[in-house]
Amino acid sequence: MTRTVFILNGPNLNLLGRREPATYGAETLDDIAGRCRRRADALGLEVDFRQTNAEGTLVDWIHEAGDKAFAAILNAGAYTHTSVAIHDAIRAVALPVIEVHLSNIHNRESFRHVSYIAPVARGIICGLGPVGYELALEALAGQQDNRATD
Amino acid sequence: MTRTVFILNGPNLNLLGRREPATYGAETLDDIAGRCRRRADALGLEVDFRQTNAEGTLVDWIHEAGDKAFAAILNAGAYTHTSVAIHDAIRAVALPVIEVHLSNIHNRESFRHVSYIAPVARGIICGLGPVGYELALEALAGQQDNRATD
Amino acid sequence: MTRTVFILNGPNLNLLGRREPATYGAETLDDIAGRCRRRADALGLEVDFRQTNAEGTLVDWIHEAGDKAFAAILNAGAYTHTSVAIHDAIRAVALPVIEVHLSNIHNRESFRHVSYIAPVARGIICGLGPVGYELALEALAGQQDNRATD
Amino acid sequence: MTRTVFILNGPNLNLLGRREPATYGAETLDDIAGRCRRRADALGLEVDFRQTNAEGTLVDWIHEAGDKAFAAILNAGAYTHTSVAIHDAIRAVALPVIEVHLSNIHNRESFRHVSYIAPVARGIICGLGPVGYELALEALAGQQDNRATD
Amino acid sequence: MTRTVFILNGPNLNLLGRREPATYGAETLDDIAGRCRRRADALGLEVDFRQTNAEGTLVDWIHEAGDKAFAAILNAGAYTHTSVAIHDAIRAVALPVIEVHLSNIHNRESFRHVSYIAPVARGIICGLGPVGYELALEALAGQQDNRATD
Amino acid sequence: MTRTVFILNGPNLNLLGRREPATYGAETLDDIAGRCRRRADALGLEVDFRQTNAEGTLVDWIHEAGDKAFAAILNAGAYTHTSVAIHDAIRAVALPVIEVHLSNIHNRESFRHVSYIAPVARGIICGLGPVGYELALEALAGQQDNRATD
Amino acid sequence: MTRTVFILNGPNLNLLGRREPATYGAETLDDIAGRCRRRADALGLEVDFRQTNAEGTLVDWIHEAGDKAFAAILNAGAYTHTSVAIHDAIRAVALPVIEVHLSNIHNRESFRHVSYIAPVARGIICGLGPVGYELALEALAGQQDNRATD
Amino acid sequence: MTRTVFILNGPNLNLLGRREPATYGAETLDDIAGRCRRRADALGLEVDFRQTNAEGTLVDWIHEAGDKAFAAILNAGAYTHTSVAIHDAIRAVALPVIEVHLSNIHNRESFRHVSYIAPVARGIICGLGPVGYELALEALAGQQDNRATD
Amino acid sequence: MTRTVFILNGPNLNLLGRREPATYGAETLDDIAGRCRRRADALGLEVDFRQTNAEGTLVDWIHEAGDKAFAAILNAGAYTHTSVAIHDAIRAVALPVIEVHLSNIHNRESFRHVSYIAPVARGIICGLGPVGYELALEALAGQQDNRATD
Amino acid sequence: MTRTVFILNGPNLNLLGRREPATYGAETLDDIAGRCRRRADALGLEVDFRQTNAEGTLVDWIHEAGDKAFAAILNAGAYTHTSVAIHDAIRAVALPVIEVHLSNIHNRESFRHVSYIAPVARGIICGLGPVGYELALEALAGQQDNRATD
Amino acid sequence: MTRTVFILNGPNLNLLGRREPATYGAETLDDIAGRCRRRADALGLEVDFRQTNAEGTLVDWIHEAGDKAFAAILNAGAYTHTSVAIHDAIRAVALPVIEVHLSNIHNRESFRHVSYIAPVARGIICGLGPVGYELALEALAGQQDNRATD
Amino acid sequence: MTRTVFILNGPNLNLLGRREPATYGAETLDDIAGRCRRRADALGLEVDFRQTNAEGTLVDWIHEAGDKAFAAILNAGAYTHTSVAIHDAIRAVALPVIEVHLSNIHNRESFRHVSYIAPVARGIICGLGPVGYELALEALAGQQDNRATD
Repeated sequence: MTRTVFILNGPNLNLLGRREPATYGAETLDDIAGRCRRRADALGLEVDFRQTNAEGTLVDWIHEAGDKAFAAILNAGAYTHTSVAIHDAIRAVALPVIEVHLSNIHNRESFRHVSYIAPVARGIICGLGPVGYELALEALAGQQDNRATD
Repeated sequence: MTRTVFILNGPNLNLLGRREPATYGAETLDDIAGRCRRRADALGLEVDFRQTNAEGTLVDWIHEAGDKAFAAILNAGAYTHTSVAIHDAIRAVALPVIEVHLSNIHNRESFRHVSYIAPVARGIICGLGPVGYELALEALAGQQDNRATD
Repeated sequence: MTRTVFILNGPNLNLLGRREPATYGAETLDDIAGRCRRRADALGLEVDFRQTNAEGTLVDWIHEAGDKAFAAILNAGAYTHTSVAIHDAIRAVALPVIEVHLSNIHNRESFRHVSYIAPVARGIICGLGPVGYELALEALAGQQDNRATD
Repeated sequence: MTRTVFILNGPNLNLLGRREPATYGAETLDDIAGRCRRRADALGLEVDFRQTNAEGTLVDWIHEAGDKAFAAILNAGAYTHTSVAIHDAIRAVALPVIEVHLSNIHNRESFRHVSYIAPVARGIICGLGPVGYELALEALAGQQDNRATD
Repeated sequence: MTRTVFILNGPNLNLLGRREPATYGAETLDDIAGRCRRRADALGLEVDFRQTNAEGTLVDWIHEAGDKAFAAILNAGAYTHTSVAIHDAIRAVALPVIEVHLSNIHNRESFRHVSYIAPVARGIICGLGPVGYELALEALAGQQDNRATD
Repeated sequence: MTRTVFILNGPNLNLLGRREPATYGAETLDDIAGRCRRRADALGLEVDFRQTNAEGTLVDWIHEAGDKAFAAILNAGAYTHTSVAIHDAIRAVALPVIEVHLSNIHNRESFRHVSYIAPVARGIICGLGPVGYELALEALAGQQDNRATD
Repeated sequence: MTRTVFILNGPNLNLLGRREPATYGAETLDDIAGRCRRRADALGLEVDFRQTNAEGTLVDWIHEAGDKAFAAILNAGAYTHTSVAIHDAIRAVALPVIEVHLSNIHNRESFRHVSYIAPVARGIICGLGPVGYELALEALAGQQDNRATD
Repeated sequence: MTRTVFILNGPNLNLLGRREPATYGAETLDDIAGRCRRRADALGLEVDFRQTNAEGTLVDWIHEAGDKAFAAILNAGAYTHTSVAIHDAIRAVALPVIEVHLSNIHNRESFRHVSYIAPVARGIICGLGPVGYELALEALAGQQDNRATD
Repeated sequence: MTRTVFILNGPNLNLLGRREPATYGAETLDDIAGRCRRRADALGLEVDFRQTNAEGTLVDWIHEAGDKAFAAILNAGAYTHTSVAIHDAIRAVALPVIEVHLSNIHNRESFRHVSYIAPVARGIICGLGPVGYELALEALAGQQDNRATD
Repeated sequence: MTRTVFILNGPNLNLLGRREPATYGAETLDDIAGRCRRRADALGLEVDFRQTNAEGTLVDWIHEAGDKAFAAILNAGAYTHTSVAIHDAIRAVALPVIEVHLSNIHNRESFRHVSYIAPVARGIICGLGPVGYELALEALAGQQDNRATD
Repeated sequence: MTRTVFILNGPNLNLLGRREPATYGAETLDDIAGRCRRRADALGLEVDFRQTNAEGTLVDWIHEAGDKAFAAILNAGAYTHTSVAIHDAIRAVALPVIEVHLSNIHNRESFRHVSYIAPVARGIICGLGPVGYELALEALAGQQDNRATD
Repeated sequence: MTRTVFILNGPNLNLLGRREPATYGAETLDDIAGRCRRRADALGLEVDFRQTNAEGTLVDWIHEAGDKAFAAILNAGAYTHTSVAIHDAIRAVALPVIEVHLSNIHNRESFRHVSYIAPVARGIICGLGPVGYELALEALAGQQDNRATD
């Protein structure tokens, strides 16, 4: 059976590579999707990689992941700090979610220090750049095995 | 003349019945729509029952209600706690709105204790489960009569 | 077996009808008691309707309700916002309590936005005027039946 | 070369003229669009005037402005006070943005005193009604010339 | 027609003269009642001077004053800082109330800096010791005359 | 000369044994009164053991203790967290008071972490269940001896 | 020996009578000066009545009062809420100061609820209009007598 | 009849051009006065352009404007963030005031995000540099015409 | 089997008797150790009495107590108010801990009102001086018996 | 040249496996050290794995890492939330540090939501259990390569 | 070339020696001026020593210092805690300023713990009495030499 | 008799000269020790100069200073902002302590604006670099002479 991971990206991440490279690096979101697909192959996973600027669409996709995926990686961008709706969506579905941020949100403005996603995430990886997505995949692959042994 | 009540439901309420039944109960949103239609019939009202995960769509629908409905019942879900846009929409249109919550938001996380909708709502019913929608219909039916006597 | 609901009213509610009618309406507390008795009759319930200006007396009555009633409706007036003692009393007795407010406390002073009663109430109805008491009775009647089916 | 200014309007501004005229005045959004086009003509600018109730759409349009416009005027309505996503979008694109509000947001509710847009805006004009849009156009026209002399 | 002023004293004021004389002075509450009666005589007023340790009783007495007195002087003692019920009682009745404190509550603990009574009082006199009661009587006598000339 | 200790209990403590035994234990208030009388006998003390749900009555009793007792033990229940009046009463009388709580108020809701009584109490014993009352008696007996040697 | 009271008025009080009569009444500052002189005559006091819009001048005058007056009445207007310098000046000189406000500052904006003067004032009279100045004179006259008997 | 606008500048603005040009630009205050006079000429207005470092003098000038001008433009500099006295002065006089800031105060220190002037200003223009003064003049000229049509 | 209680003392307690005797009394820490040993003998307990100024050493000793003792008494001194590490250590080991303070920390500086230890302590005794240690021993001896009856 | 990573563990982590396994899992710290050594071997890294309960020792070790290691992984346990000293130590040395937490600190007590380490860390991995250490090693190995290409 | 240091003193410092000697000592401001002149002589510096009670005058003098002095010593008294205008003045001029306080402002009222001057001062000396001025002179003399070696 | 000053340095100060020279300068801690010894010689004082990264060791050394030194200079580094234990140690011993910081802690992160040491220090010198230690010595030498003349 194929094990699919939804990798969901929120607002402004479509500008990656063009946007403030000192903060976010030179890779585009397509580059990161490529990294994720290669790493997923190596781990025996499938990935469904998406981006949207709309909060409601992220909620929709998390619901869809609840039906189709065994886990999700979520970089909700700015909605991380404001969206109770995404918080509720994660809590409502029954799959592990790893929150990923490219930059270290803790050395930026104070309104970025609050995450509504963190309390309902399985784990958090932040500040490690694009490789953070890959590490999240690796963590999820391993957790799967753990669950098999339960 | 038909008196229509818009019953508008926000993010994650489409998962009702599947989502955290200990908190939200076993009824689905369709079950609640059914309850509302039956109760509305008894009260001589029509209902237009909708759900969306998008904040902007809720704003659109409240505008539409301002044109087509004589009242609205709004369970804005998580947007209750974060949406100034919905607050403004209710204030902008000229119809009474009753805020409904299935669970008692006051014994949950502190970020659920703030409601941007409450200050512009006619009234609030919370913690009474699906019957809360029905009570809101009854209150609106009654208020209509009050307005007729003014 | 008779099912009795205690309907307990707190400070200043004895002035109802004379006090700030723009905020609280023209009905007196006796009018509301009459409404409640008629609605209770229709629902097969008994009501014991009381008012006091003393916090300690409300605590006493909640204890008494714990022995004699199957549910209570509580409009604690100003003590809503300051009384941990009433909070504790509700938690100590084993009966459902619905918190009722005539006005919408959420569009008034900020010190009225905090309710010590809400976290221990079964549900809350506010801003709907005297009919709010009746809706609370209806909700309690229904809940009773639910409990019978459990 | 045509110099285009995107003029982007957020939630509930479509109701302008109908909504709380004591606060927002009697002009409709179309009236304001007309004012802007006439003033832009006089200044040798083009305007692309839009409105949406959706936060994500505002983010999309700011991205589009980053590609097609030399500046933007943004009245984000209620999203002004809640949207980190729009904050990030402005920071991500390389064009000057002037924040405009019809009413003086500083003598209204305290939750309107915070603007997530202000820290990333070039400037702010508020409380001056529809003429505020025109003044913003004038300021942008002037700034353009300044940039030419750099 | 007799013009009666209710002078209502709250918790612990019965201990006056015995209690912390460095803060509250050596006069007893009876001494102050005597002062008030003599001054009222000179001003052509009657006084009804009372003390209680119970918040609910103060609420009762303010209601009674609403029926029988043309004004009230209130030293609510500690309830000044905690009682929304007294705040509501004053607002509900239609007579002017002057808040009096023997000591200067503003150079004591910070929890004494908040007064729920001040926002609904006509005026406040504090820190002037027992003579503060007399000045309040004088102010009320004068205001009465002002009202006659309106 | 008989040395009497007033042991004063506040709201809801009359329900002890029936109320939330997981938090408060299975002993009734009468059981605790018995413990206190036996321990007092052994220490050569008398106890006057009382309970009330009314804040004003606690204030009255503390005044009475100031006249008749050499010390007091006070479990003010919920009034611990809200009563400035009791704070003032303790400060006004000249006898040592030990604050006792059956449960550990510091691992419960944050509104129970504030005590208006603690700053004016001689000492505090909390979280040790009914034996806390006995330890308070022992501490008072010992302090008495200390005062004799001063 | 002449007993002089400095009556010092702060910013904007020169506009009295013209400014917001609904809040501040129709009397001018000259009218109030007249009241004060007449009342002072009756009490055997002299008054030196002044107004300035400058914080530093108020500090200068309080220093001068420390040398020449036996007491001062201070309506510091807006500086009440912001001036530590005036606070320090009062503390530095050795004469009693009564703080007076025409309006009840406690039912206005929250930034008017803080007074830097109150902690160093002998007493406070507020909300009683122009007669408040006269009551302050009377209180000072009386205090003087008290000091003579010490 | 000549229509005069007072343009009042607060502390440190006399240093303009020398002071932190990265933040405030290279124009001196005289340059800005020149701009304003030229723009006023074009609009048929007179300007009275002043600067002071003293808070009390700004209060005096606003009073004077109340008598002599039909509107004012105010850049109160640092007093923007601390002066209740200026707030009161604007409220006391009956002329429209536009608050202007050269820099965007919202992307600087948090103590610059609070403006005591904004709640009583007609409108606010900030972050647009010296041209902000000119736009304020234009807005005021337009408003005048509006008032004529009332 | 010997029942050992660790009695652990934190920073500055080695100075006891020399340090601020008005606050902490004249007994030295050795005197208190003696008291504890005598009381423990009477109760059939052993005590291991220690003091350190190092936070890490307190953590070590609590771990050691988890292995060797059946209970601990902890006066963590200043670390009470700052140490999450000690909080975690207590939670990690499986033995009851009673928090003791010689002085009443609740009538001292506000930073002493927060205790990181209280939420994980079995109970708290404070303000009773050296006898507080003895009462803690007595409480632990009693609890032991309770556990035996479980 | 050998590339060494210091893996530094703070207070209470020596109890791992024995301490609250529901929160921290069943692996001991030795198990984790083993994981790290095996993963480091695979990545061509050396690890120096240590634990201490003392804040000062962690500061010493970070200094030592600054001299001997090319990177560090730090699980500072409770000191994460309180230690400015460790914050400063990381900032003072010139090597990348990844902050690791076994549990998700964001769904625990609010005092665990603040990290003094996060603002000076390169990245953060939390909530992923022991594998988090391994992912941190992998991230560091990768970053090293990046630095080689600079 | 003469090197001049402006020594600027704010409100109430003219009362030194007369004012609260327990806090501020017995020396007058003239005494301190004398100390400063003698120490300046020894260090080869000139001093210009002034005092004012007006905030605006301090701003003026700091501007003047920017033109004429190579450094300033500033004891802004109460304006330390309230004046953004002085903060801006220091930032606007290009000379080092040392903030001096006679008393230790950190063990006084909490509103004295905030200094608007500290963030823009070169250094701060407080609590050392009049010698603090001399140490500031010495520090400035030394810094001058450092700058010469740059 | 030799007069010894303990000069105690806290965490990370051993890295001085290597660590963030832009903030802390290029001198090492040994350089500063040399400065202090030379200045002490000139003033007839001895110095005992130490550094540690451990909070408990600083507490120990302050106790030792209480026995052996006539004064102390303390640069507690990061513990300045977190250590109540050091606060208590200073209060417990009977010698004057001057708090020194090399950098101006008031223009850095907000968590560095709080000092637990300042309220118990005799005085504070900050932002003046290494010479701050020398000025502290000079101040202590002078105070000693002052004490001799008392």
